[in-house]
Amino acid sequence: MAQYSETIQRVMELLGRLPGIGARTAERLAFYLLKAPDAEALALAEAIHDLKTKIHPCSICFNPTERDVCAICADQRRDRSIICVVEQPKDLLALESTGAYHGVYHVLMGAIDPLHGVEPEDLTIDSLLQRVSAGSVSEVILATNPTVAGDGTSLFIAERLARAGVKITRLARGLPAGGQIEYANKSILADAMNERRSV
Amino acid sequence: MAQYSETIQRVMELLGRLPGIGARTAERLAFYLLKAPDAEALALAEAIHDLKTKIHPCSICFNPTERDVCAICADQRRDRSIICVVEQPKDLLALESTGAYHGVYHVLMGAIDPLHGVEPEDLTIDSLLQRVSAGSVSEVILATNPTVAGDGTSLFIAERLARAGVKITRLARGLPAGGQIEYANKSILADAMNERRSV
Repeated sequence: MAQYSETIQRVMELLGRLPGIGARTAERLAFYLLKAPDAEALALAEAIHDLKTKIHPCSICFNPTERDVCAICADQRRDRSIICVVEQPKDLLALESTGAYHGVYHVLMGAIDPLHGVEPEDLTIDSLLQRVSAGSVSEVILATNPTVAGDGTSLFIAERLARAGVKITRLARGLPAGGQIEYANKSILADAMNERRSV
Repeated sequence: MAQYSETIQRVMELLGRLPGIGARTAERLAFYLLKAPDAEALALAEAIHDLKTKIHPCSICFNPTERDVCAICADQRRDRSIICVVEQPKDLLALESTGAYHGVYHVLMGAIDPLHGVEPEDLTIDSLLQRVSAGSVSEVILATNPTVAGDGTSLFIAERLARAGVKITRLARGLPAGGQIEYANKSILADAMNERRSV
Protein backbone atom coordinates (compact mmCIF):
# COMPACT_ATOMS: atom_id res chain seq x y z
CA MET A 1 0.00 0.00 0.00
CA ALA A 2 1.29 3.43 -0.98
CA GLN A 3 2.08 5.71 1.95
CA TYR A 4 2.76 9.33 2.68
CA SER A 5 6.17 10.20 4.01
CA GLU A 6 6.88 9.00 7.55
CA THR A 7 6.25 12.31 9.34
CA ILE A 8 2.89 12.88 7.63
CA GLN A 9 1.85 9.31 8.45
CA ARG A 10 2.79 9.88 12.07
CA VAL A 11 0.76 13.09 12.39
CA MET A 12 -2.21 11.36 10.77
CA GLU A 13 -1.93 8.36 13.07
CA LEU A 14 -1.70 10.48 16.24
CA LEU A 15 -4.53 12.81 15.18
CA GLY A 16 -6.61 9.72 14.34
CA ARG A 17 -6.35 8.56 17.96
CA LEU A 18 -8.21 11.65 19.21
CA PRO A 19 -11.88 11.07 20.08
CA GLY A 20 -14.24 11.68 17.17
CA ILE A 21 -11.42 12.04 14.64
CA GLY A 22 -11.38 9.27 12.05
CA ALA A 23 -8.73 8.41 9.47
CA ARG A 24 -10.23 10.73 6.83
CA THR A 25 -10.44 13.73 9.14
CA ALA A 26 -6.93 13.02 10.43
CA GLU A 27 -5.65 13.07 6.84
CA ARG A 28 -7.45 16.34 6.11
CA LEU A 29 -6.11 17.95 9.29
CA ALA A 30 -2.56 16.73 8.61
CA PHE A 31 -2.58 18.34 5.16
CA TYR A 32 -4.18 21.47 6.55
CA LEU A 33 -1.33 21.72 9.06
CA LEU A 34 1.23 20.98 6.34
CA LYS A 35 -0.10 23.92 4.31
CA ALA A 36 -0.81 26.24 7.26
CA PRO A 37 1.59 29.05 8.15
CA ASP A 38 4.50 27.75 10.25
CA ALA A 39 3.55 30.08 13.11
CA GLU A 40 0.03 28.65 13.43
CA ALA A 41 0.99 24.96 13.31
CA LEU A 42 4.03 25.38 15.55
CA ALA A 43 1.92 27.34 18.04
CA LEU A 44 -0.43 24.36 18.24
CA ALA A 45 2.47 21.95 18.79
CA GLU A 46 3.84 24.22 21.51
CA ALA A 47 0.46 24.71 23.18
CA ILE A 48 -0.10 20.94 23.37
CA HIS A 49 3.42 20.58 24.78
CA ASP A 50 2.66 23.28 27.39
CA LEU A 51 -0.62 21.56 28.23
CA LYS A 52 1.27 18.44 29.30
CA THR A 53 4.20 20.18 30.97
CA LYS A 54 2.87 23.40 32.53
CA ILE A 55 -0.63 22.38 33.58
CA HIS A 56 -1.24 20.36 36.75
CA PRO A 57 -4.10 20.03 39.22
CA CYS A 58 -4.55 22.86 41.77
CA SER A 59 -3.04 21.61 45.02
CA ILE A 60 -6.28 22.48 46.83
CA CYS A 61 -9.21 21.81 44.49
CA PHE A 62 -7.65 19.89 41.52
CA ASN A 63 -8.85 22.43 38.94
CA PRO A 64 -6.14 22.40 36.21
CA THR A 65 -3.84 25.41 36.51
CA GLU A 66 -0.39 26.69 35.58
CA ARG A 67 0.23 27.74 39.20
CA ASP A 68 0.42 25.79 42.43
CA VAL A 69 -3.01 27.06 43.47
CA CYS A 70 -5.71 27.90 40.90
CA ALA A 71 -7.10 31.42 40.38
CA ILE A 72 -10.31 30.63 42.29
CA CYS A 73 -8.59 29.10 45.34
CA ALA A 74 -6.13 32.03 45.34
CA ASP A 75 -8.92 34.63 45.20
CA GLN A 76 -9.30 36.12 48.70
CA ARG A 77 -12.86 37.26 47.93
CA ARG A 78 -14.16 33.68 47.55
CA ASP A 79 -15.98 32.12 50.49
CA ARG A 80 -13.79 29.20 51.61
CA SER A 81 -16.46 27.87 53.97
CA ILE A 82 -18.52 26.51 51.04
CA ILE A 83 -17.12 23.82 48.75
CA CYS A 84 -18.96 22.93 45.54
CA VAL A 85 -18.00 19.41 44.41
CA VAL A 86 -18.00 18.86 40.62
CA GLU A 87 -16.98 15.96 38.41
CA GLN A 88 -15.01 17.84 35.75
CA PRO A 89 -13.29 21.20 35.20
CA LYS A 90 -15.96 21.82 32.51
CA ASP A 91 -18.67 21.64 35.17
CA LEU A 92 -16.77 24.15 37.31
CA LEU A 93 -16.60 26.54 34.36
CA ALA A 94 -20.30 26.13 33.60
CA LEU A 95 -21.20 26.99 37.21
CA GLU A 96 -18.74 29.91 37.26
CA SER A 97 -20.31 31.36 34.13
CA THR A 98 -23.60 31.82 36.00
CA GLY A 99 -21.94 34.20 38.47
CA ALA A 100 -24.31 32.75 41.07
CA TYR A 101 -21.69 31.07 43.24
CA HIS A 102 -18.97 32.69 45.32
CA GLY A 103 -17.58 29.75 47.28
CA VAL A 104 -14.73 27.48 46.24
CA TYR A 105 -14.72 24.16 44.36
CA HIS A 106 -13.45 20.62 44.51
CA VAL A 107 -12.94 18.77 41.20
CA LEU A 108 -13.37 14.99 41.54
CA MET A 109 -11.87 14.29 38.09
CA GLY A 110 -14.66 11.90 37.20
CA ALA A 111 -17.51 9.93 38.74
CA ILE A 112 -17.49 6.51 40.37
CA ASP A 113 -18.24 4.05 37.59
CA PRO A 114 -17.02 0.51 38.38
CA LEU A 115 -18.25 -0.83 35.03
CA HIS A 116 -15.77 1.51 33.33
CA GLY A 117 -13.06 0.86 35.91
CA VAL A 118 -13.46 4.11 37.88
CA GLU A 119 -13.33 3.32 41.61
CA PRO A 120 -13.64 5.87 44.46
CA GLU A 121 -9.86 5.84 44.99
CA ASP A 122 -9.35 6.97 41.37
CA LEU A 123 -11.08 10.25 42.23
CA THR A 124 -10.01 13.07 44.56
CA ILE A 125 -12.52 12.09 47.27
CA ASP A 126 -9.86 11.52 49.96
CA SER A 127 -8.53 15.05 49.45
CA LEU A 128 -12.07 16.40 49.76
CA LEU A 129 -12.56 14.57 53.07
CA GLN A 130 -9.26 16.02 54.31
CA ARG A 131 -10.31 19.55 53.30
CA VAL A 132 -13.57 19.16 55.18
CA SER A 133 -12.02 17.54 58.26
CA ALA A 134 -9.47 20.38 58.47
CA GLY A 135 -12.42 22.46 59.72
CA SER A 136 -13.65 25.93 58.63
CA VAL A 137 -15.98 24.34 56.05
CA SER A 138 -19.67 24.81 56.77
CA GLU A 139 -21.33 23.48 53.59
CA VAL A 140 -20.52 20.98 50.84
CA ILE A 141 -22.63 21.29 47.69
CA LEU A 142 -22.70 18.04 45.70
CA ALA A 143 -22.87 19.20 42.07
CA THR A 144 -22.27 15.93 40.24
CA ASN A 145 -24.21 15.19 37.06
CA PRO A 146 -27.83 14.00 37.47
CA THR A 147 -26.87 10.58 36.09
CA VAL A 148 -26.51 7.11 37.62
CA ALA A 149 -22.75 7.56 38.02
CA GLY A 150 -23.06 11.14 39.28
CA ASP A 151 -25.81 10.32 41.76
CA GLY A 152 -23.87 7.29 43.01
CA THR A 153 -20.78 9.41 43.51
CA SER A 154 -22.73 12.03 45.47
CA LEU A 155 -24.30 9.33 47.64
CA PHE A 156 -20.87 7.83 48.35
CA ILE A 157 -19.44 11.22 49.33
CA ALA A 158 -22.49 12.14 51.42
CA GLU A 159 -22.08 8.92 53.42
CA ARG A 160 -18.41 9.61 53.99
CA LEU A 161 -19.18 13.16 55.14
CA ALA A 162 -22.09 12.15 57.37
CA ARG A 163 -20.09 12.46 60.58
CA ALA A 164 -18.11 15.54 59.56
CA GLY A 165 -20.72 17.89 60.95
CA VAL A 166 -21.12 19.97 57.79
CA LYS A 167 -24.26 20.85 55.89
CA ILE A 168 -24.50 18.71 52.74
CA THR A 169 -26.64 19.95 49.84
CA ARG A 170 -27.11 19.07 46.19
CA LEU A 171 -28.20 21.06 43.16
CA ALA A 172 -31.96 21.44 42.61
CA ARG A 173 -33.69 19.19 40.07
CA GLY A 174 -36.74 19.87 37.99
CA LEU A 175 -37.80 21.31 34.66
CA PRO A 176 -34.97 22.92 32.70
CA ALA A 177 -35.60 26.66 32.26
CA GLY A 178 -36.76 27.33 28.70
CA GLY A 179 -37.82 23.71 28.20
CA GLN A 180 -41.29 22.40 27.51
CA ILE A 181 -43.19 19.94 29.65
CA GLU A 182 -44.34 17.91 26.64
CA TYR A 183 -40.70 17.18 25.74
CA ALA A 184 -39.46 16.49 29.27
CA ASN A 185 -38.80 12.82 30.03
CA LYS A 186 -40.24 10.83 32.93
CA SER A 187 -37.24 11.34 35.22
CA ILE A 188 -37.33 15.11 34.75
CA LEU A 189 -41.10 15.24 35.41
CA ALA A 190 -40.80 12.95 38.45
CA ASP A 191 -38.09 15.25 39.87
CA ALA A 192 -40.19 18.31 39.09
CA MET A 193 -43.19 16.81 40.84
CA ASN A 194 -41.27 15.48 43.86
CA GLU A 195 -39.39 18.72 44.45
CA ARG A 196 -42.33 21.06 43.85
CA ARG A 197 -42.38 24.29 45.82
CA SER A 198 -45.22 26.36 47.24
CA VAL A 199 -45.74 29.66 45.43
CA MET B 1 -17.03 35.25 31.48
CA ALA B 2 -15.31 32.47 33.38
CA GLN B 3 -12.29 30.98 31.65
CA TYR B 4 -10.08 27.95 31.82
CA SER B 5 -6.45 28.53 32.67
CA GLU B 6 -4.42 30.30 29.97
CA THR B 7 -2.74 27.21 28.52
CA ILE B 8 -6.00 25.28 28.18
CA GLN B 9 -7.64 28.30 26.53
CA ARG B 10 -4.75 28.52 24.10
CA VAL B 11 -4.94 24.85 23.09
CA MET B 12 -8.72 25.21 22.63
CA GLU B 13 -8.32 28.33 20.53
CA LEU B 14 -5.67 26.81 18.27
CA LEU B 15 -7.55 23.50 17.86
CA GLY B 16 -10.69 25.51 17.08
CA ARG B 17 -8.93 27.08 14.08
CA LEU B 18 -8.54 23.70 12.38
CA PRO B 19 -11.06 23.00 9.61
CA GLY B 20 -14.22 21.25 10.81
CA ILE B 21 -13.34 21.66 14.49
CA GLY B 22 -15.72 23.96 16.34
CA ALA B 23 -15.42 25.42 19.83
CA ARG B 24 -17.16 22.43 21.47
CA THR B 25 -14.98 19.84 19.76
CA ALA B 26 -11.86 21.90 20.52
CA GLU B 27 -12.84 21.91 24.21
CA ARG B 28 -13.42 18.16 24.20
CA LEU B 29 -10.10 17.51 22.46
CA ALA B 30 -8.20 19.84 24.83
CA PHE B 31 -9.52 17.96 27.86
CA TYR B 32 -8.85 14.63 26.19
CA LEU B 33 -5.23 15.70 25.68
CA LEU B 34 -5.04 17.01 29.24
CA LYS B 35 -6.09 13.58 30.53
CA ALA B 36 -4.18 11.52 27.94
CA PRO B 37 -0.86 9.89 28.84
CA ASP B 38 2.00 12.38 28.54
CA ALA B 39 3.68 10.21 25.90
CA GLU B 40 0.68 10.29 23.58
CA ALA B 41 0.00 14.03 23.78
CA LEU B 42 3.67 15.01 23.61
CA ALA B 43 4.13 12.69 20.62
CA LEU B 44 1.39 14.62 18.83
CA ALA B 45 3.02 17.96 19.69
CA GLU B 46 6.35 16.67 18.42
CA ALA B 47 4.87 15.17 15.26
CA ILE B 48 3.18 18.48 14.37
CA HIS B 49 6.48 20.24 15.05
CA ASP B 50 8.30 17.77 12.78
CA LEU B 51 5.66 18.25 10.10
CA LYS B 52 6.55 21.94 9.88
CA THR B 53 10.30 21.59 10.27
CA LYS B 54 11.30 18.29 8.61
CA ILE B 55 8.86 18.07 5.71
CA HIS B 56 9.41 20.03 2.50
CA PRO B 57 8.48 19.57 -1.15
CA CYS B 58 10.54 17.07 -3.17
CA SER B 59 13.03 19.13 -5.20
CA ILE B 60 11.90 17.34 -8.37
CA CYS B 61 8.15 16.64 -8.12
CA PHE B 62 7.01 18.66 -5.03
CA ASN B 63 5.59 15.61 -3.24
CA PRO B 64 6.14 16.32 0.52
CA THR B 65 9.13 14.41 1.86
CA GLU B 66 11.69 14.37 4.68
CA ARG B 67 14.52 14.01 2.12
CA ASP B 68 15.73 16.24 -0.69
CA VAL B 69 14.15 13.93 -3.27
CA CYS B 70 11.01 11.87 -2.51
CA ALA B 71 10.95 8.07 -2.43
CA ILE B 72 9.28 7.84 -5.86
CA CYS B 73 11.71 10.22 -7.62
CA ALA B 74 14.61 8.41 -5.93
CA ASP B 75 13.36 4.96 -7.05
CA GLN B 76 15.52 3.84 -9.99
CA ARG B 77 12.82 1.40 -11.15
CA ARG B 78 10.34 4.19 -11.97
CA ASP B 79 10.04 5.27 -15.60
CA ARG B 80 11.26 8.90 -15.68
CA SER B 81 10.04 9.39 -19.25
CA ILE B 82 6.41 9.61 -18.11
CA ILE B 83 5.24 12.36 -15.74
CA CYS B 84 1.78 12.17 -14.17
CA VAL B 85 0.61 15.66 -13.14
CA VAL B 86 -1.66 15.76 -10.08
CA GLU B 87 -3.15 18.58 -8.01
CA GLN B 88 -2.43 17.27 -4.51
CA PRO B 89 -0.26 14.73 -2.70
CA LYS B 90 -3.51 12.89 -1.86
CA ASP B 91 -4.17 12.36 -5.57
CA LEU B 92 -0.67 10.95 -6.01
CA LEU B 93 -1.29 8.50 -3.18
CA ALA B 94 -4.66 7.44 -4.63
CA LEU B 95 -3.04 6.72 -8.01
CA GLU B 96 -0.11 4.92 -6.36
CA SER B 97 -2.48 2.67 -4.46
CA THR B 98 -3.79 1.25 -7.76
CA GLY B 99 -0.32 -0.07 -8.61
CA ALA B 100 -1.21 0.68 -12.26
CA TYR B 101 1.38 3.41 -12.83
CA HIS B 102 5.15 3.12 -12.89
CA GLY B 103 6.21 6.54 -14.08
CA VAL B 104 6.98 9.58 -11.93
CA TYR B 105 4.77 12.44 -10.74
CA HIS B 106 4.53 16.20 -10.58
CA VAL B 107 2.45 17.73 -7.79
CA LEU B 108 0.96 21.12 -8.75
CA MET B 109 -0.04 21.94 -5.16
CA GLY B 110 -3.52 23.03 -6.20
CA ALA B 111 -5.52 24.01 -9.29
CA ILE B 112 -5.82 27.34 -11.06
CA ASP B 113 -8.81 29.07 -9.44
CA PRO B 114 -8.70 32.87 -9.85
CA LEU B 115 -11.96 33.32 -7.91
CA HIS B 116 -10.21 31.86 -4.87
CA GLY B 117 -6.98 33.72 -5.60
CA VAL B 118 -5.03 30.79 -7.05
CA GLU B 119 -3.15 31.96 -10.16
CA PRO B 120 -0.92 29.78 -12.39
CA GLU B 121 2.22 31.25 -10.77
CA ASP B 122 1.02 29.98 -7.36
CA LEU B 123 1.36 26.41 -8.63
CA THR B 124 4.46 24.45 -9.66
CA ILE B 125 3.70 24.72 -13.39
CA ASP B 126 6.98 26.49 -14.23
CA SER B 127 8.95 23.66 -12.65
CA LEU B 128 6.94 21.15 -14.70
CA LEU B 129 7.73 23.04 -17.92
CA GLN B 130 11.42 23.01 -16.98
CA ARG B 131 11.35 19.26 -16.29
CA VAL B 132 9.76 18.64 -19.69
CA SER B 133 12.05 21.03 -21.59
CA ALA B 134 15.09 19.36 -20.02
CA GLY B 135 14.33 16.49 -22.43
CA SER B 136 14.04 12.73 -21.81
CA VAL B 137 10.28 13.07 -21.11
CA SER B 138 8.07 11.35 -23.67
CA GLU B 139 4.60 11.67 -22.09
CA VAL B 140 2.81 13.98 -19.68
CA ILE B 141 -0.40 12.59 -18.17
CA LEU B 142 -2.72 15.36 -16.94
CA ALA B 143 -4.41 13.83 -13.88
CA THR B 144 -6.14 16.88 -12.43
CA ASN B 145 -9.62 16.52 -10.96
CA PRO B 146 -12.56 16.36 -13.42
CA THR B 147 -13.82 19.74 -12.15
CA VAL B 148 -13.95 23.25 -13.63
CA ALA B 149 -10.72 24.23 -11.84
CA GLY B 150 -8.98 20.94 -12.64
CA ASP B 151 -9.99 20.97 -16.31
CA GLY B 152 -8.93 24.62 -16.62
CA THR B 153 -5.56 23.82 -15.10
CA SER B 154 -5.02 20.90 -17.47
CA LEU B 155 -5.98 23.06 -20.45
CA PHE B 156 -3.54 25.77 -19.33
CA ILE B 157 -0.71 23.24 -18.97
CA ALA B 158 -1.54 21.52 -22.27
CA GLU B 159 -1.29 24.87 -24.08
CA ARG B 160 2.05 25.61 -22.48
CA LEU B 161 3.37 22.17 -23.44
CA ALA B 162 2.01 22.27 -26.98
CA ARG B 163 5.40 23.06 -28.53
CA ALA B 164 7.45 20.82 -26.23
CA GLY B 165 7.08 17.84 -28.55
CA VAL B 166 5.80 15.45 -25.89
CA LYS B 167 2.70 13.28 -25.93
CA ILE B 168 0.03 14.84 -23.70
CA THR B 169 -2.72 12.61 -22.32
CA ARG B 170 -5.39 12.86 -19.67
CA LEU B 171 -7.18 10.30 -17.51
CA ALA B 172 -10.19 8.55 -19.08
CA ARG B 173 -13.68 9.74 -18.21
CA GLY B 174 -16.89 7.81 -18.12
CA LEU B 175 -19.01 5.73 -15.80
CA PRO B 176 -17.38 5.05 -12.43
CA ALA B 177 -16.78 1.31 -11.97
CA GLY B 178 -19.39 -0.11 -9.60
CA GLY B 179 -21.75 2.81 -10.21
CA GLN B 180 -25.22 2.68 -11.74
CA ILE B 181 -26.35 4.50 -14.87
CA GLU B 182 -29.61 5.65 -13.26
CA TYR B 183 -27.65 7.53 -10.60
CA ALA B 184 -24.99 9.01 -12.90
CA ASN B 185 -25.40 12.73 -13.58
CA LYS B 186 -25.56 14.38 -17.01
CA SER B 187 -21.85 15.22 -17.15
CA ILE B 188 -20.85 11.65 -16.40
CA LEU B 189 -23.27 10.25 -18.99
CA ALA B 190 -22.16 12.80 -21.60
CA ASP B 191 -18.52 11.80 -20.99
CA ALA B 192 -19.44 8.12 -21.16
CA MET B 193 -21.25 8.63 -24.43
CA ASN B 194 -18.61 10.86 -26.03
CA GLU B 195 -15.73 8.61 -25.07
CA ARG B 196 -17.42 5.32 -25.92
CA ARG B 197 -15.22 2.53 -27.21
CA SER B 198 -15.82 -0.24 -29.70
CA VAL B 199 -16.05 -3.69 -28.17
